[in-house]
Amino acid sequence: MQLINALVYALSPEGNSASPPASVVATVPYYPAYKSQTDMFDGREYRWDGTTATWSNSGSRNSTKDFIEFVTSPNNPDTALCEPVLAGSSAIVDHAYYWPHLTHIPAPADEDVMLFTTSKLSGHAGSRFGWALIRDENVAKRALSYVEQSIMGASRDTQLRILKILKVILANLHGKEDIFAFGYEVMRSRWRRLNAVVSRSTRISLQKIPPQYCTYFNRIKEPSPAYAWVKCEWEEDDDCYETLLAAGIISRSGTFYEAGARYTRLSLIKAQDDFDVLLERITEFVDAEHGRVPAASSSM
Amino acid sequence: MQLINALVYALSPEGNSASPPASVVATVPYYPAYKSQTDMFDGREYRWDGTTATWSNSGSRNSTKDFIEFVTSPNNPDTALCEPVLAGSSAIVDHAYYWPHLTHIPAPADEDVMLFTTSKLSGHAGSRFGWALIRDENVAKRALSYVEQSIMGASRDTQLRILKILKVILANLHGKEDIFAFGYEVMRSRWRRLNAVVSRSTRISLQKIPPQYCTYFNRIKEPSPAYAWVKCEWEEDDDCYETLLAAGIISRSGTFYEAGARYTRLSLIKAQDDFDVLLERITEFVDAEHGRVPAASSSM
Repeated sequence: MQLINALVYALSPEGNSASPPASVVATVPYYPAYKSQTDMFDGREYRWDGTTATWSNSGSRNSTKDFIEFVTSPNNPDTALCEPVLAGSSAIVDHAYYWPHLTHIPAPADEDVMLFTTSKLSGHAGSRFGWALIRDENVAKRALSYVEQSIMGASRDTQLRILKILKVILANLHGKEDIFAFGYEVMRSRWRRLNAVVSRSTRISLQKIPPQYCTYFNRIKEPSPAYAWVKCEWEEDDDCYETLLAAGIISRSGTFYEAGARYTRLSLIKAQDDFDVLLERITEFVDAEHGRVPAASSSM
Repeated sequence: MQLINALVYALSPEGNSASPPASVVATVPYYPAYKSQTDMFDGREYRWDGTTATWSNSGSRNSTKDFIEFVTSPNNPDTALCEPVLAGSSAIVDHAYYWPHLTHIPAPADEDVMLFTTSKLSGHAGSRFGWALIRDENVAKRALSYVEQSIMGASRDTQLRILKILKVILANLHGKEDIFAFGYEVMRSRWRRLNAVVSRSTRISLQKIPPQYCTYFNRIKEPSPAYAWVKCEWEEDDDCYETLLAAGIISRSGTFYEAGARYTRLSLIKAQDDFDVLLERITEFVDAEHGRVPAASSSM
């Protein structure tokens, strides 16, 4: 989390230079912290400057501007594998979900500035252990300086704890298979079960994810995303978050991702019991739909 | 560490207001992170504006300026109990060393904005567990928002770990006494032994700390500081850090605290073995002095 702004800082022009602030941008739907954190830390070096759509048509693109573009791959929340939109921008590629149990791995990650975390690896997000791979030495030094100045790095306890967690996970596999194969089975099964239910609905739909070749497993991989990106299709359901909430389902509104209230995000990375309750409520929600006439339905 | 800038942010004017940035200041010698962190996060809300000495004489004091003043009590590194210098400033009172085994407690802490940490409590600085007490609700909300935005708060693992550490410390006392009485005996003994050696020296001196009444122990308390603030008295020793380093003693130069190279800081909060080695080397350093004629000695 803290590394996000460390990388923005590291890629922005030096504070004492005469350069204008870098423009920090992301593509809709994006992780809300990109904007809120950049806004809060707004300094002389950089500032939030909206979404890539504003700048990607060449008419409004000012070539003298320095851009720092957030690229989340797979994206949060819609799980698309993204690439930079603005040519020539400095890209911060956020690989928080780039694990073979959550997505296919089309190629080894090889971008200039990459962000990783164990938060989505195993369900121990509370440990908040992350790291960055940075190709340019000067950028790496500035990011390191930021981390030292702001918090002196991840605490020793967090480092020891995440090592222990990884050892426990490996021990629980009894040497039979790797942790990604295990995680893939869990996540694939959840996505399948959810899709089976939602496919009966005209009221809600899910993002489409085709099977893809994965270089980690060396075979075609079925989808196994961390999140379901739900769209409410009925005209009356103009706030999809509220629509699901009325059915006892807690999600995260698309408005946080600048994607509009028609969308909302369901988390599939949770304890099995919690997932089972979620699926039960979604099933009830879809079953109820057939006993009800919508005010007006859209065939989108 | 992160809370330091969270409090600066919380006390500064809102970013979208027309107010000029707040001036962040501290009194020499001060903890270097106050300046370096404020410089790095320099934004539209606040900026580093030098030491209190620059502003404390009424001639240069501009009453329309918003000041945020760092007050460390006991101070790092000279251990003085400090109060705000600039009337009307917002004070951030850093109580990292305000433990009864490291200083006397003249009165219950009751400032508007106070910062605490377990880092200097027990030698588990690597856990980096800290908290702030804030009287004003709006300031508290802004600080909380900063912490959430920048790092989502202390990790769960760190919280669990520091609870465990406290339980282990209490268990090791076998109910006989409190942890502060234990810590006080250790730190007082170190300070006494160090003073006994340095009192034989004309080359180096230590800060003077009188016995003071402590409301925690309900009696006069001998000094038991976390740091020794060493001054090199001989004219030739114009870099006190280098002087000690030549004798195999690693310290932290006074230049980091804007206090000049005549001063350097020795840490007394370390494992007992490390302290014993330190005392041995200081003893050799002082003994060697008597076999040597200084280029010129000062009687300051």
